[in-house]
Amino acid sequence: MEETFVPFRGIKNDLQGRLMCYKQDWSSGFKAGFRILAPTTYIFFASAIPVISFGEQLERNTEGVITAVQTLASTALCGIIHSIIGGQPLLILGVAEPTVIMYTFMFNFVKERQDLGSHLFLAWTGWVCVWTAFLLFLLSILGACSIINRFTRVAGELFGLLIAMLFMQQAIKGLVDEFRIPERENMKLIEFIPSWRFANGMFALVLSFGLLHTALRSRKARSWRYGSGWIRSLIADYGVPLMVLVWTAISYIPSGSVPKGIPRRLFSPNPWSPGAYDNWTDMLQVPVFYIIGAFIPATMIAVLYYFDHSVASQLAQQKEFNLRKPSSYHYDLLLLGFLTLLCGLLGIPPSNGVIPQSPMHTKSLATLKHQLLRNRLVATARRSMGKNASLGQMYGNMQEAYQQMQTPLIYQQPASQGLKELKETTIQAASCMGNMNAPVDETVFDIEKEIDDLLPVEVKEQRVSNLLQAIMVGGCVAAMPFLKMIPTSVLWGYFAFMAIESLPGNQFWERILLLFTAPSRRYKVLEEYHATFVETVPFQTIALFTLFQTVYLLICFGLTWVPIAGVMFPLMIMLLVPVRQYFLPKFFKGAHLQDLDAAEYEEAPALPFTLATGSEIGAGATYAGDGEILDEVITRSRGEFRHTSSPKITSTNATPANDPQSLRSPCVTYSPRVSELRGERSPRMGGRASPKTGESKLSTLGKSPQN
Amino acid sequence: MEETFVPFRGIKNDLQGRLMCYKQDWSSGFKAGFRILAPTTYIFFASAIPVISFGEQLERNTEGVITAVQTLASTALCGIIHSIIGGQPLLILGVAEPTVIMYTFMFNFVKERQDLGSHLFLAWTGWVCVWTAFLLFLLSILGACSIINRFTRVAGELFGLLIAMLFMQQAIKGLVDEFRIPERENMKLIEFIPSWRFANGMFALVLSFGLLHTALRSRKARSWRYGSGWIRSLIADYGVPLMVLVWTAISYIPSGSVPKGIPRRLFSPNPWSPGAYDNWTDMLQVPVFYIIGAFIPATMIAVLYYFDHSVASQLAQQKEFNLRKPSSYHYDLLLLGFLTLLCGLLGIPPSNGVIPQSPMHTKSLATLKHQLLRNRLVATARRSMGKNASLGQMYGNMQEAYQQMQTPLIYQQPASQGLKELKETTIQAASCMGNMNAPVDETVFDIEKEIDDLLPVEVKEQRVSNLLQAIMVGGCVAAMPFLKMIPTSVLWGYFAFMAIESLPGNQFWERILLLFTAPSRRYKVLEEYHATFVETVPFQTIALFTLFQTVYLLICFGLTWVPIAGVMFPLMIMLLVPVRQYFLPKFFKGAHLQDLDAAEYEEAPALPFTLATGSEIGAGATYAGDGEILDEVITRSRGEFRHTSSPKITSTNATPANDPQSLRSPCVTYSPRVSELRGERSPRMGGRASPKTGESKLSTLGKSPQN
Repeated sequence: MEETFVPFRGIKNDLQGRLMCYKQDWSSGFKAGFRILAPTTYIFFASAIPVISFGEQLERNTEGVITAVQTLASTALCGIIHSIIGGQPLLILGVAEPTVIMYTFMFNFVKERQDLGSHLFLAWTGWVCVWTAFLLFLLSILGACSIINRFTRVAGELFGLLIAMLFMQQAIKGLVDEFRIPERENMKLIEFIPSWRFANGMFALVLSFGLLHTALRSRKARSWRYGSGWIRSLIADYGVPLMVLVWTAISYIPSGSVPKGIPRRLFSPNPWSPGAYDNWTDMLQVPVFYIIGAFIPATMIAVLYYFDHSVASQLAQQKEFNLRKPSSYHYDLLLLGFLTLLCGLLGIPPSNGVIPQSPMHTKSLATLKHQLLRNRLVATARRSMGKNASLGQMYGNMQEAYQQMQTPLIYQQPASQGLKELKETTIQAASCMGNMNAPVDETVFDIEKEIDDLLPVEVKEQRVSNLLQAIMVGGCVAAMPFLKMIPTSVLWGYFAFMAIESLPGNQFWERILLLFTAPSRRYKVLEEYHATFVETVPFQTIALFTLFQTVYLLICFGLTWVPIAGVMFPLMIMLLVPVRQYFLPKFFKGAHLQDLDAAEYEEAPALPFTLATGSEIGAGATYAGDGEILDEVITRSRGEFRHTSSPKITSTNATPANDPQSLRSPCVTYSPRVSELRGERSPRMGGRASPKTGESKLSTLGKSPQN
Repeated sequence: MEETFVPFRGIKNDLQGRLMCYKQDWSSGFKAGFRILAPTTYIFFASAIPVISFGEQLERNTEGVITAVQTLASTALCGIIHSIIGGQPLLILGVAEPTVIMYTFMFNFVKERQDLGSHLFLAWTGWVCVWTAFLLFLLSILGACSIINRFTRVAGELFGLLIAMLFMQQAIKGLVDEFRIPERENMKLIEFIPSWRFANGMFALVLSFGLLHTALRSRKARSWRYGSGWIRSLIADYGVPLMVLVWTAISYIPSGSVPKGIPRRLFSPNPWSPGAYDNWTDMLQVPVFYIIGAFIPATMIAVLYYFDHSVASQLAQQKEFNLRKPSSYHYDLLLLGFLTLLCGLLGIPPSNGVIPQSPMHTKSLATLKHQLLRNRLVATARRSMGKNASLGQMYGNMQEAYQQMQTPLIYQQPASQGLKELKETTIQAASCMGNMNAPVDETVFDIEKEIDDLLPVEVKEQRVSNLLQAIMVGGCVAAMPFLKMIPTSVLWGYFAFMAIESLPGNQFWERILLLFTAPSRRYKVLEEYHATFVETVPFQTIALFTLFQTVYLLICFGLTWVPIAGVMFPLMIMLLVPVRQYFLPKFFKGAHLQDLDAAEYEEAPALPFTLATGSEIGAGATYAGDGEILDEVITRSRGEFRHTSSPKITSTNATPANDPQSLRSPCVTYSPRVSELRGERSPRMGGRASPKTGESKLSTLGKSPQN
């Protein structure tokens, strides 16, 4: 994206780009069929649960003026509008924690003014929203989003980790509160005598840890060894909502002498009860002085939204996702302005792009696309084999099928890259089998594994999942009587789950882990997939950089505790842009910074232990020896999916198995790209660091344990 | 062991064998130094906690006549005597569940007789013990233990799994009881009002699952990536007792309004309180009719002990442990007779060999021996390298050091087998490096990994750990005031932990898991270490055999629920001997039975996925590519250690790392034994099953996923 500050140009570009794929956004989503429900439900829960919880928080803080019904309504309304006429449909909108903090602050301000009072609170926030919308229009029109590229990985990942910390803090705080008497409750209820309070707290511990543990486990179901394939898929796709149901059901097991209030459950007014929508139509009753004064909080909210919305969008469109459709920062900010205005006039808190839900959305769509591609190609390959096609023909058919599934767009990047690999593998396999034109035998040739190996990461970019999840959030307002059955402790467990789910793939987090890794075990990092910086940057530099980032993170986290200034913590993160551009280069080598803060996430393939001492055939063989790659790809600890920008190392073992002798005379082919890969990196390494540094690092990381 | 029924011959043989290594039993134990404390504490906890819990159970069942003090005293006394003058020092003695059931039954019988009454209970059990001792003497003298070899893996593992089920049952029952009012307690205490009872139950859930989870995690500490080496070792060695401490400490966190009785803690009388040792000296007051009648329960107890003691001893001496010192079944049974007599006269319940503690003991000593050997050899190798020795010289020195650490015994099996490997690896490494006489460079040659790879499983066979743990159990009687601080819920968690810890390595259990493994994932079993039957026996046969065993197990388990007959469940397991010999061969091929019920646990090395389709270089390379083998060896899911009767596949990657070019031209050597191994197995396979069966099985297991 070019940095342009010509008014309207950014919006125009965005609109042009997204309009071109608008029709495809819908058709491709519907073509995915019922499978689209897996990412949809996943995101629906990730979206609805925090919104409900923030609603409860707002209800306490605003003395019931704003409740979960309003936050849900805002999230649903904005989500539906954004998914239909928004730019980037991967972006998920919702009422977020900063909004809650801002609204709490504003309520406290309004409550104390005699000429406003809490009955004019919503009216006044309406004016704040008007000003905020105005500022967002300005920012969007003037192309403020052009500088989004200066928000590098450092800023984005720091923000991501900060959000994870805030979620975890909420989980812990919630659990501790389960042992206390909630505010605004009747102290004399039986469930608040010390014994029942203690029982409630302990029950909450059981429920929240139960949910956290089982939800984390269920996400890894695809790699389980037990149960049939569809059960494993089902659990992996829908395990988290399922676990919310299961633990809610468990919370109903104790009965009889246990009072109704234990465990505590969600508390929200019935959406149809009177008094929920009072006093917000009085915008004109607000004194002019306060209408003008509303500009002050509006600036803060505008900055906040500008940052939040853009970074959430950016994190949902990271390079490693290999997205094919264009971004839409300017236009989305413009739309956010309209949405804020709408919410303000309706008297509900506005929504903006949320983290970690937006990147979670993209990840789950990558999983979906992988499954769809895989099924299609496997079917094609099987059909070819059924016709006794040769290996060459089969790959031809597969390539054709792959092309058919590609988005036919002008913006599209060279799509055939992914299957280029296939051709090379073909040649190797054929040379190993002796004849490329011989019919392929499936007992010999493992199609599914082969395809899993070769498929690049792609994302099912469409609008259907976003629209559906927003509609489901809207449905929550009607389903409030059912939602009330969920124990609050399950909510806290879910918060912890979201915090933990957002960690893998965050390089900042992984560098922190690397610092705590015993020196004798660092080679294990090399054995797995790893970002290139592990190999190209000296350990001390990594440590120093990570330390700096951690201190910065802790300062930001501390800032959120400061009553009013706390809302401005995004400013601290925006401050990272000049820090990264002017301050950091004074302490770190440019090349190192570029690797540590790479926008493009270049991942190196796993090196087996032996590589550190020299072998490389082993590398290829080990990697190719891996089992069901899909599951490894999808459910590994690094997150939902993986991406290798470097071509994959493939070994095709195409020896006929019905010749027992062949067991002892195997034909292993390893791609010449292994050495190419090495060759590619070597000059780069040499160009930056002296060969000695490169080596010493490799040997430091890869060397044998000393203890 | 020969099957001899000549009176006294078995005892004589046992004594001769064990006397020969008696001195070495002590010296070798003391030489291990403080490291012996790791297996000692591990076994102490595994031994003391169930004994305390059984004591509490007896206390309830015998109206306080027998308490945890007596069960601890019996365990300590018998343990100390057995560790000093017993035959097999790997065997752990303790008061076991069957004894508890028998004593409960006898108490209920005595209580109802007017001419006995509960005040003559201990006196009468004294007579039962006299008769039991007499029967045990007879069995031992007549060589009944000779038929121990007919208790095959089928019987032993079934018994092991049954014990695991009983432990797990106890854990669940204990947890459920935490929600109820305990018997014999003052119902009016504040902690028994419904709210506090519920709170207590929930707290118990938190504590027991907390202990279970953290204890299981801590056992795997050696393979953690974080923390320095000694911390990881410490946690792996002492993690379980540490966790009991930690969770006991956590149980004290809630204070203030929480009553003292929550969570419930161990309840035992002070050992010095009067009344604990009443009425047992009145053996002569028992009517003659009852003295003779005592013979009936005595036969049952004798059969029980004969079986329990022998099987516990057998499981502690399985072939895969590569024990060097002789067994001592007959003599140990004789000693058990004396111990039973002693306990009967003292009025305490007798102890016998226990499962799973005895095999746990051997496993922990195998870990110890591995560490000792490894440290010694690494030191030797480093010293050699310091002197710029060549690879050949270094291996010479290492072989010498290894020989020095071998037990110098007549009974010893060829000990040099383990390091034979070293020589072969040397040759390969040298041929790869070009010169065997060149000095070795440690940056190139990974000594520790190499040694971990090569060391065979050996066990530190000595008497010190057994003696120390028995003394520590004795110390528990004095430490009762401290033990009382442990919450009962931590106990239940520990029971579950013991049940789960006893599972890995149990082939019966692993076959059950195999049945539940999705067909598309069975190749994963081949990818790991696996027993040979997985490759040599068709899956259907495995399934049928496992199903039979499972039904048999469930019958045994059901039998333990039958009030009186339940005590005789060992008879059901002894019945397995004729079933195995005469019944099973009618349904299964002899060769298959031999593989499924192999006394010698022959383990095949891991086959990577590629093998199924032909490659084998990959196999060697993958295996050698593994990281810190010690940890993999010790903390893998199969249990504490592994054993490969087939020689290991080793790949030495001895390319100088300071030549960057070498990264691209690796020198991988893979042992010719790979094909030898295959060659060894092939004829065996052909001899039994048609080659077609063998193949189809391999391809069934190894084939690609279909779903």
